[in-house]
Amino acid sequence: MTEHRTLRVALLGAGSVGSQVARLLLAHADDLAERSGARLELAGILVRNPDAPRDAELPRELLTTDAEALILGADIVIELMGGIEPARTHVLAALRSGADVVTGNKALLATHGAEIFEAADQVGASVSYEAAVAAAIPIIRPLRDSLAGDRIVRIFGIVNGSTNFILDSMDREGLAAEDAQRIATELGYLEADPTLDLEGYDAAQKAAILASLAFHTQVSIEDVHRQGIESVTAGMIADARRAGYVIKLLAICERLGGAEGDEISVRVYPALIDRDHPLASVHGGNNAVFVEAEAAGPLMFYGAGAGGAQTASAVLGDVVSAARRHIAGGVGIGESARQSLPIAPIGRITTRYQITLEVEDQPGVLATVAGILSEENVSVATALQTVDADEAATARIVIGTHRASEEALSGTVARLAGTPVVTRVVSVLRVEGE
Amino acid sequence: MTEHRTLRVALLGAGSVGSQVARLLLAHADDLAERSGARLELAGILVRNPDAPRDAELPRELLTTDAEALILGADIVIELMGGIEPARTHVLAALRSGADVVTGNKALLATHGAEIFEAADQVGASVSYEAAVAAAIPIIRPLRDSLAGDRIVRIFGIVNGSTNFILDSMDREGLAAEDAQRIATELGYLEADPTLDLEGYDAAQKAAILASLAFHTQVSIEDVHRQGIESVTAGMIADARRAGYVIKLLAICERLGGAEGDEISVRVYPALIDRDHPLASVHGGNNAVFVEAEAAGPLMFYGAGAGGAQTASAVLGDVVSAARRHIAGGVGIGESARQSLPIAPIGRITTRYQITLEVEDQPGVLATVAGILSEENVSVATALQTVDADEAATARIVIGTHRASEEALSGTVARLAGTPVVTRVVSVLRVEGE
Repeated sequence: MTEHRTLRVALLGAGSVGSQVARLLLAHADDLAERSGARLELAGILVRNPDAPRDAELPRELLTTDAEALILGADIVIELMGGIEPARTHVLAALRSGADVVTGNKALLATHGAEIFEAADQVGASVSYEAAVAAAIPIIRPLRDSLAGDRIVRIFGIVNGSTNFILDSMDREGLAAEDAQRIATELGYLEADPTLDLEGYDAAQKAAILASLAFHTQVSIEDVHRQGIESVTAGMIADARRAGYVIKLLAICERLGGAEGDEISVRVYPALIDRDHPLASVHGGNNAVFVEAEAAGPLMFYGAGAGGAQTASAVLGDVVSAARRHIAGGVGIGESARQSLPIAPIGRITTRYQITLEVEDQPGVLATVAGILSEENVSVATALQTVDADEAATARIVIGTHRASEEALSGTVARLAGTPVVTRVVSVLRVEGE
Repeated sequence: MTEHRTLRVALLGAGSVGSQVARLLLAHADDLAERSGARLELAGILVRNPDAPRDAELPRELLTTDAEALILGADIVIELMGGIEPARTHVLAALRSGADVVTGNKALLATHGAEIFEAADQVGASVSYEAAVAAAIPIIRPLRDSLAGDRIVRIFGIVNGSTNFILDSMDREGLAAEDAQRIATELGYLEADPTLDLEGYDAAQKAAILASLAFHTQVSIEDVHRQGIESVTAGMIADARRAGYVIKLLAICERLGGAEGDEISVRVYPALIDRDHPLASVHGGNNAVFVEAEAAGPLMFYGAGAGGAQTASAVLGDVVSAARRHIAGGVGIGESARQSLPIAPIGRITTRYQITLEVEDQPGVLATVAGILSEENVSVATALQTVDADEAATARIVIGTHRASEEALSGTVARLAGTPVVTRVVSVLRVEGE
């Protein structure tokens, strides 16, 4: 066996991903040395309480609560604590000491990315974060490296496994939202506090990270138009199914051409997808991301969206790259925010919509509704009126629009809601993927 | 605009990919400078005949026939000539002069990979070849970098767009093989000499490249068990469709555990895939590759499998990386053949098979056939006997086997073919993707 230089690796956090990373670093030490050109010595694992019970069998003597000593002695720091503080402080300290940082912390990058990449730039260290988006699916590196000579037009996909599991169970097993959520919690797809997933924050953090990278623009979570799946009901999913659609929570990062140059739109919302679209067959907790570039055309990346081992695979890929860079010499590849494209307001986006209304079953209602759409310049592509079997004197109108702006549409929906013959606006959903 | 260092880029070849690469290098010069940190100056384009008519408008003054002068003056050499010689000589000359090489030449890598990677290692230069497999789909880099900390178990997919176009047309439009081939030629999916595609050489070259990288073992085209689609008929495709399958030309690179350690199997053949499998919906000239790693689980990469612009996108991604490395300093990441796993003979592989026989329609035939399978230890999973509507006195037996070794099977098929009641062995196909 070749003699290898030793690099000291500090691991911050020993949760489900951290403990898998530690296990793999220890179990595959020889193999990783051959791959990276360096022996990766796990110097210590930062934990809050060294005596807490743990999943994996981590050597007790590696556990420490002394962040400063651990970080200052490390060549590579792996941050898997999650949350903003103290993760931010530790990452900045690591970079300032010249260590390379590998992190899976999407919340941190989506809020303090600019500060962190600047700190890395100043010392020529690298920040890698493949694990922050879509677990083991390589998506950060393809955007940063493989497509570096191309121009990305659109990224579009399912980046939150928990909500996909819930929507998929509702669609395939006809479950009510509460039941699907309960099962997701039991199976470990949802955290004790499910807000981050259900309200789309997690997907929005990932969208911010992808958009920043794809469009060379610092996009933070506040720039992302966000809507979660809280309002998606079993009835909406059944309606979608009847119409040949499935509802998915989509993250969309898009370059919009304009008279005054490009703008970008970054948004997360539940939308209708045709059942024939490849994203419609992404089941359970899986993720899938389409990347459309000018020369490359559409590419799709698919795999597990979460899981300790899966995410650990992405972390170790980054660690091996950081180690190779240490051995080969040279500085890390900095992030680029050089284009600083403006963020388009959501009102600027145009999509197709499907509007479902509950109306009084009397003559002239469809004409009234169509008249309002026409006055608001929202063009109708399809219209279907049916009588509600359960409730006499009530009918249902489903309108599919041609592309319309959010601006035009929200005005229209407000007018429809205020029209006496319209009993209820059942749902307003965008149709994507066409 | 920042001042950038200039790197001289030599382009060898101005075919459909080369001319796109030249066009993008010239058109996006500023953008590429920002992304790579270096101005990429296209120093010259090696062509056989500077006066030949060309697709794209390439500046006449860049065209040259002086390979030596062009290569020796370059920092990065892009080889898109194809074929073994003179590409091999030029690539070796470039590496020996310390230039980084970017190539899309799968034939060269699958036959002379070891020599080329060794030459690169000796001077610390890099050889990048994302464009050699699956055009713009990032697959080389995920294997080399993203999954570097994981252990790859299996790669499995559609890597030849031409044959996929043909099989897909036969399946979806019911075309005969000759008609599908004619259309593929007319649309530019097949070369004037279609042998490389139809007989599976192209897929086998790509399989050798993927297996080398995934298993850290030098795999050359001679190590790949190869069967093309020449023998696939419209009848076989119709049979497959009736049974719920589709026929795809698959490239499979697999790690096989054994009593004496791991072996690898690398093979290309047409096989049956369940119509529900994601690979079944890869249509037209597209490619899709599954990568299964121990920790990451199954990942899928999907996109266009060919095309000048698509392949040029992959080339430029590699060029930008090579330029960044030049600017950052340090040596290229060498290839690793350190594991040198033995290649398993094809007889060692076990898969499920579907055997279709034409037999005489008389009592006891199924018993005879089943008896032979039983004596040869090939276990039957499903059996279907039908009477041929067109030909009286002829019946058809379709046997689905449990997993059996190629060895056991080929003996069985030979015995079946020699059995008097068996009029014809219609087809023997593996069932994959289960």
